[in-house]
Amino acid sequence: MRQDVLTGEWISIAAARQKRAFLPPAELDPLAPQSATNPSEVPSRYDVAVFENKSPSFGPEIGDEATAPQDALASLARIQWGRRRPSIGRCEVVCFSPDTTGSFASQSLTRARTIIEAWADRVTALSALPGVQQVVPFENRGEAIGVTLHHPHGQIYSYPYVTPKTSALLRSIDNYDGDLFADILAREQSGDRVLLRGEHFTAFVPFAARWPIEIHMLPHRHVPDIAGLTADERDELAVLYRRLLRAVDALYDTPTPYISAWHQAPVHTHRDSVRLMLQITSIRRGADRLKYLAGSESAMGAFIGDIPPETQAENLRRALTEVTD
Amino acid sequence: MRQDVLTGEWISIAAARQKRAFLPPAELDPLAPQSATNPSEVPSRYDVAVFENKSPSFGPEIGDEATAPQDALASLARIQWGRRRPSIGRCEVVCFSPDTTGSFASQSLTRARTIIEAWADRVTALSALPGVQQVVPFENRGEAIGVTLHHPHGQIYSYPYVTPKTSALLRSIDNYDGDLFADILAREQSGDRVLLRGEHFTAFVPFAARWPIEIHMLPHRHVPDIAGLTADERDELAVLYRRLLRAVDALYDTPTPYISAWHQAPVHTHRDSVRLMLQITSIRRGADRLKYLAGSESAMGAFIGDIPPETQAENLRRALTEVTD
Repeated sequence: MRQDVLTGEWISIAAARQKRAFLPPAELDPLAPQSATNPSEVPSRYDVAVFENKSPSFGPEIGDEATAPQDALASLARIQWGRRRPSIGRCEVVCFSPDTTGSFASQSLTRARTIIEAWADRVTALSALPGVQQVVPFENRGEAIGVTLHHPHGQIYSYPYVTPKTSALLRSIDNYDGDLFADILAREQSGDRVLLRGEHFTAFVPFAARWPIEIHMLPHRHVPDIAGLTADERDELAVLYRRLLRAVDALYDTPTPYISAWHQAPVHTHRDSVRLMLQITSIRRGADRLKYLAGSESAMGAFIGDIPPETQAENLRRALTEVTD
Repeated sequence: MRQDVLTGEWISIAAARQKRAFLPPAELDPLAPQSATNPSEVPSRYDVAVFENKSPSFGPEIGDEATAPQDALASLARIQWGRRRPSIGRCEVVCFSPDTTGSFASQSLTRARTIIEAWADRVTALSALPGVQQVVPFENRGEAIGVTLHHPHGQIYSYPYVTPKTSALLRSIDNYDGDLFADILAREQSGDRVLLRGEHFTAFVPFAARWPIEIHMLPHRHVPDIAGLTADERDELAVLYRRLLRAVDALYDTPTPYISAWHQAPVHTHRDSVRLMLQITSIRRGADRLKYLAGSESAMGAFIGDIPPETQAENLRRALTEVTD
């Protein structure tokens, strides 16, 4: 990976990914379970299977135990011409089901709970790898956002740096007077964009949504990552998360492409101030319209929202009334 | 606009844009010049025409002269729940030609020079508007990146804040020991990614390119914006910029979608350290492949490059040998 001195960010160059599988037909699904005609490493009977990505963006090499995490973080932040580092880390694939079609929303509640358990296990294991600074489980769903395999699956990226999005969050926290996440939760709970309120979690469209569809969900107490959730919290999460994804699919007559990402505290810093946060986002701005990131968003990082968050919260609440658990 | 407290960034909500013209047929081209059957405000005979965007992301209201620019900047940077501001500013459309098809690259050299003159004029005028903090001329080309009008045109956004991309640059400059842009230019000029070297400008694929196609061009002396370029510099810029865009189109058998953005110094800060920089980027990673911003890039801001910058520099140098001025 190379440092972009214009932003201080690290760009991983993973040229091998150019040759990755691209929308293979069903009979060549690389995530299909082992069978007499499919000599796969994925077992023939499983609920949820996790394995390393064959075309990883980071790793599989891991870091040097000799470097203290704080020293590594400080070193990465330095701006200097021509810096290169090995793209250490780990990229994993999480097969949600042996079935070759579907998504998280189409899994049974029991299976949804098992996936959450698998995420928690892997977050613990990946966070312990030397050099890993942040672990992000996510799911991309839909060809419109570049999904290259239809088999229902998610991914977990273990980064050798704190991601730019989370770095911006750390700056906000450092410049904020109070507990940022406690205040966001309290303000959103008393606002008009709440979608679901459980015993342990509240989901809402955020005050300053940047995507046409954007849902955030926060736990009611401070938890830095999925691994820190109690069994009761995980039980409720399975129900609420699946319900939210089903509501996203109920918005239109056809499935909506989305990115669902679990924003977690960095492994070695701000564990007490960055709260686990789910963000579901979609570029779909109408039945037959996508939002493209053009000059303003892509070149300058300046987002223009197309739909008022309060309007989209109404639409999502209506969709929630149509879904079943 | 509303402040996203997670990042400190401002999100402009421009709901009227939902109804903007979307790929109208040629006979309904809103940028076509006035004629007997087309009662347009765009004059019937022109080289380059500039007017306000009918569906603006910012403005047309402008700022309050009573607030000092530095106070306005400091105030915008504060992190506080629930902040809203009017989306002041100005969004302009620059028609490159009365012809209804083409792009910047297809214009004559004389016309290209006139467009640069128009940009310089507008940058001066827009930078003087109260409340405007950054002015960005850009061109989106290609339906794959969301272009909604085929008429050859660019846009100029005048932002009421320093954009997130440029804010990251200001942090880098503040954390860098030396003249960042002078050093980038010197290092790139002595590297193996140079594409074109003129008397006044050098174009290159940057060391840490994040897009499959990414070209940067810098002037050889410090200039904060297009308006600061001399007549000689503008003359050379017309030749080199058009040549670069023609090379991008020569990479494949079909035209390549691109975003071309003029990164300029903010209007009220860092005028002596932020140099005018052209960035041409494209998501095309193959003849029939686009790079999508999925989980890592879109959710976490963490970019994974698909093509080594040195390889793409070779490809672009080959394409440059095939284009004519």
